[in-house]
Amino acid sequence: MRATISSALNTLQDTICATLEVLDGRCHFREDLWSHPAGSGRTRVLQDGGLFERAGVNTSAVETDLPEGLARRLHVDPQRAFATGISLVLHPASPMVPTVHANFRYIELANGDFWFSGGADLTPWYLVERDAAQFHMTWKHVCDRHDLSWYPKFKKGCDEYFFLKHRGETRGIGGIFFDDLRGDRELLWHFVQDCGNSFLQSYVPIVERRRHDVWSERERSWQLLRRGRYVEFNLLYDRATAFGLETDGRAESVLISLPPLVRWDYQADPQPGSREAVLVAALRSPREWINTAPVISHAGG
Amino acid sequence: MRATISSALNTLQDTICATLEVLDGRCHFREDLWSHPAGSGRTRVLQDGGLFERAGVNTSAVETDLPEGLARRLHVDPQRAFATGISLVLHPASPMVPTVHANFRYIELANGDFWFSGGADLTPWYLVERDAAQFHMTWKHVCDRHDLSWYPKFKKGCDEYFFLKHRGETRGIGGIFFDDLRGDRELLWHFVQDCGNSFLQSYVPIVERRRHDVWSERERSWQLLRRGRYVEFNLLYDRATAFGLETDGRAESVLISLPPLVRWDYQADPQPGSREAVLVAALRSPREWINTAPVISHAGG
Repeated sequence: MRATISSALNTLQDTICATLEVLDGRCHFREDLWSHPAGSGRTRVLQDGGLFERAGVNTSAVETDLPEGLARRLHVDPQRAFATGISLVLHPASPMVPTVHANFRYIELANGDFWFSGGADLTPWYLVERDAAQFHMTWKHVCDRHDLSWYPKFKKGCDEYFFLKHRGETRGIGGIFFDDLRGDRELLWHFVQDCGNSFLQSYVPIVERRRHDVWSERERSWQLLRRGRYVEFNLLYDRATAFGLETDGRAESVLISLPPLVRWDYQADPQPGSREAVLVAALRSPREWINTAPVISHAGG
Repeated sequence: MRATISSALNTLQDTICATLEVLDGRCHFREDLWSHPAGSGRTRVLQDGGLFERAGVNTSAVETDLPEGLARRLHVDPQRAFATGISLVLHPASPMVPTVHANFRYIELANGDFWFSGGADLTPWYLVERDAAQFHMTWKHVCDRHDLSWYPKFKKGCDEYFFLKHRGETRGIGGIFFDDLRGDRELLWHFVQDCGNSFLQSYVPIVERRRHDVWSERERSWQLLRRGRYVEFNLLYDRATAFGLETDGRAESVLISLPPLVRWDYQADPQPGSREAVLVAALRSPREWINTAPVISHAGG
């Protein structure tokens, strides 16, 4: 099963990268294969493209001793752990196109315990309700195909996880997040594959709608400032980043999630009533982007 | 004693800010007085000046319940804690002028236990050995005036504390750092005052020597990249940042330490033999910048 999942995630990486290259229109991914005693991975990075200022799409498979803090958090004894996953963060150059993150991971302990974790979340710099709704709708459809209780639960999980306590803000407008999904391995793996295969349709239509929107120095400056919040979340709170830095030792691959250019300003609150203020208001009180009554559907978003 | 120390740190803040304004030559500090149920502070920020892209010099005095993690780390029961301190981070615009950080803090627990913590450290983007030696010499003189064993100990403490494990690098070329200085309160306070009063002479001569050095896009780009490491340290490792975000609730004041503009690049290792590589080599194996045999001196650096 480990090999099946790892191999499928590499295939997913191929598919996603190929589509993103077409979407970018200018640059190709550079690939770095790495390996060290605990495992190996494929890091793919596209920089200074026609659409993406930086895009990172990584897979890895490592087997290592569970870090002490993580073992404590999981309420298990320290032991060997296998983890394989795909993780991507796309930072478009245009402030009108949202940044997006997704990751899907399978973890198995020496004692036989296993679970899946993952999710996808959108971080726009300007709020477009239609885009937020479409992103959520895609993920709701994916969840509903497997368990009608999942979308509301994973949507809430996403708002709670991607929260910057010191700012009182979520990182973006959410999506889905599941930290610890246990049950029938085949059924769960089927769901996670469905998630991976749905990523492009959750994001590409938004890119197509926003990529030609005009912007000026004001929007770019706001994007760089908000990217600072992205960095704050990833370094202060993100457990995947902490796990990566503590276990796999390839800092360059883990920190590919950080935006290429970032600004911090002192007390840069947006003007009341501005489009920037509209975004911040949405991040301060997470809302339902779609009608959450279950929809029975077998078609993607 | 609490009031004496707080008041003296505010006076020190006045002195340091007045001198930095003269040094900057263009801008003045903006002051924000803040207070909330746990305490109050004076945040002073100078932005886009003639010398400093951002300079933050803060004082605060708070009384709060010790955060659980910190209590565990200190091996004490959870209880009320009083903390007052001064903290400064200066980010010059020129990549030829080092960034500097200093902070001095007094902490007192409800059970009567108390200690001082603090230090000063220099983060150049290009290594100038004379500057590193002069910075260390100032702090060695300060330490030697109080206890001949302190400089070697605090110098080592600084290299150990300001270390980015995931990068295998120190944040800068060090200085002094003491986390937990206990003993006679009057004598220690005398030392900490001496430290505070010595900050300007440890840094200003370096600024005067470097501020007119020429630089181009290459040096600026390197500075922005290295500032990324500064951010990584502050958000991933710095206990003062964590303490600030967990206890005093004024994120804007705590995060004033972050540089104004920052870049992350994938695998941006410097060319072997370049001036950039010389800096990185110094950060990968901390060295003695001065002869550490004690010097008996009553004159400042």
